Amino acid sequence: MKIHVLFALALIGAAPAPKPASAPIPSPGEIVAAAPASDWSAIAPSDVLVMDLAPDVKGKPRRVVIQLMPPPFSQGWIGNIRNLAAAHWWDGTSVNRVQDNYVVQWGDVTEKKALPVGLVTVGEREYMVTGGDIKADHLISMSPAVIPSLPKQSSTKAKLAMISQKPDSYAQMTATFNGWPMAADRDSVWPVHCYGMVGVGRNLSPDTGTGAELYTVIGHAPRHLDRNIALVGRVIEGIEHLSSLPRGTGALGFYETAEERVPILSARLGNEIKDLPAFQYLSTESNSFAKYDEARANRRDPFFIKPAGGADICNIPVPVRRVP
Amino acid sequence: MKIHVLFALALIGAAPAPKPASAPIPSPGEIVAAAPASDWSAIAPSDVLVMDLAPDVKGKPRRVVIQLMPPPFSQGWIGNIRNLAAAHWWDGTSVNRVQDNYVVQWGDVTEKKALPVGLVTVGEREYMVTGGDIKADHLISMSPAVIPSLPKQSSTKAKLAMISQKPDSYAQMTATFNGWPMAADRDSVWPVHCYGMVGVGRNLSPDTGTGAELYTVIGHAPRHLDRNIALVGRVIEGIEHLSSLPRGTGALGFYETAEERVPILSARLGNEIKDLPAFQYLSTESNSFAKYDEARANRRDPFFIKPAGGADICNIPVPVRRVP
Repeated sequence: MKIHVLFALALIGAAPAPKPASAPIPSPGEIVAAAPASDWSAIAPSDVLVMDLAPDVKGKPRRVVIQLMPPPFSQGWIGNIRNLAAAHWWDGTSVNRVQDNYVVQWGDVTEKKALPVGLVTVGEREYMVTGGDIKADHLISMSPAVIPSLPKQSSTKAKLAMISQKPDSYAQMTATFNGWPMAADRDSVWPVHCYGMVGVGRNLSPDTGTGAELYTVIGHAPRHLDRNIALVGRVIEGIEHLSSLPRGTGALGFYETAEERVPILSARLGNEIKDLPAFQYLSTESNSFAKYDEARANRRDPFFIKPAGGADICNIPVPVRRVP
Repeated sequence: MKIHVLFALALIGAAPAPKPASAPIPSPGEIVAAAPASDWSAIAPSDVLVMDLAPDVKGKPRRVVIQLMPPPFSQGWIGNIRNLAAAHWWDGTSVNRVQDNYVVQWGDVTEKKALPVGLVTVGEREYMVTGGDIKADHLISMSPAVIPSLPKQSSTKAKLAMISQKPDSYAQMTATFNGWPMAADRDSVWPVHCYGMVGVGRNLSPDTGTGAELYTVIGHAPRHLDRNIALVGRVIEGIEHLSSLPRGTGALGFYETAEERVPILSARLGNEIKDLPAFQYLSTESNSFAKYDEARANRRDPFFIKPAGGADICNIPVPVRRVP
């Protein structure tokens, strides 16, 4: 049965290979650069979290911009994050853990700072969205043929940005949905742990964390965390201020001394930040993204001699940029 | 046809799931820690390249230890690397490129330093090993049932450390072979670009590089490079001295000024280094590795609530340690 699903995906997912041509074949980057303005989607300032770390040793500012995930995913934790930002809760906390090829984690190292009122407790079932929970509006880009148990939709513009030219190692299918990397089976859809994704630190199950303790991925996609931790966003600018930090020498990469920790000066929602640049992502339902996706999986630009014929979803990152 | 291959792999690859028990289920790390000494394989000092960078700003030494890949893979380039190390060629060169979520690259930034005599030119076909080239000795752990066109072997101890409980996004099959992550189809086997793997920088095809210009992966596995660039080894200690370097601000992450470059004091084969610690890897043909492999793909230690049921080969790194 699983094989049939994979086979169906292979048929759906395989983008047609371009015919050989004498003109140079554009690289994924060139495809993105040539995308018309209409293929880009705006990211609302109210949907980003802007975190300013203390300046580096040369006095250079270190700003990290995180896009929060849209509905219907992880909204309980994201509501908490909005609440924490409004309360200026992260101001004066720090980056406390940098584990090589894994994660950078930040929050209150004392674990004693009082949380703002109004935070909600979210259950483990919210790690994924099940068929019954998904509104048709959220699935405009998902084909009913792929997830038969999900509500059918009549939109003719529905177009699946399906990446699984080759099967995924962790899930029956993967797709970029509404700008985000997702995995799915017949009953549910969930966001996946690609490089730069931001998640909610927690203790042992059934605790799911509040959102006060956050981490981002700085190594190979730890997809074993999918459906085991809440994902709430992704770093869209400034990840180098986290990924290039010295690695912690304690267990799990925690810093062992206060001096190593990197102070967080402030974390605010984007609409509270003056002169925040406008950001946009390449719509995953656009023709440009379909071409980009195909080119990432089948590199034919002059450097390459052997196109892979596939790519895992975390090796096809959704392009994000400042509005030019 | 492809589907049949995948199906066969699923049958071969699926390790039996342990029966539910009341005792805590060991984590992958605990399985590795409990592995008997006989499950560990020595890494010969002559098979490692020891690269000493200039000390960091606090005067702390920065040593990177790279294990070279065993035959039959990439031996032309590896011969060149032995030659370059013997000639002390890298002494006085530098780390010149740090691209976030991609690679760190080092070598002669001037591109004018004379190469030692005796370097060989290696062809693109050496990016992989084809059936006819593979000696049975090299494939002691590869099952003829998996790669039918490869020479049959009679060894009853042959045991495949096959990871593809779930299919791979890039290749018909993946396996850890003789301690290394590999992908294969019916005709050939090739090493893959996981985090920490070391490859040979090159210009446009058909140039394949000499081995003087090297890079290591510091992000999500760029598997589209497989079979397009020579892989020659992996960092087994000190990758943090490369992965935490400031990101370059030039095109492709190249440093734009001489001050940013990190000097390489020396690079020598391990047998020329006094007091080099002894290293060993967990034999990929051992029972401990089979358990570790299965546990990485199906996390059941107390933190986890949803085992993935699979893992991609780069998310099951081969454990390497100093001999205790």
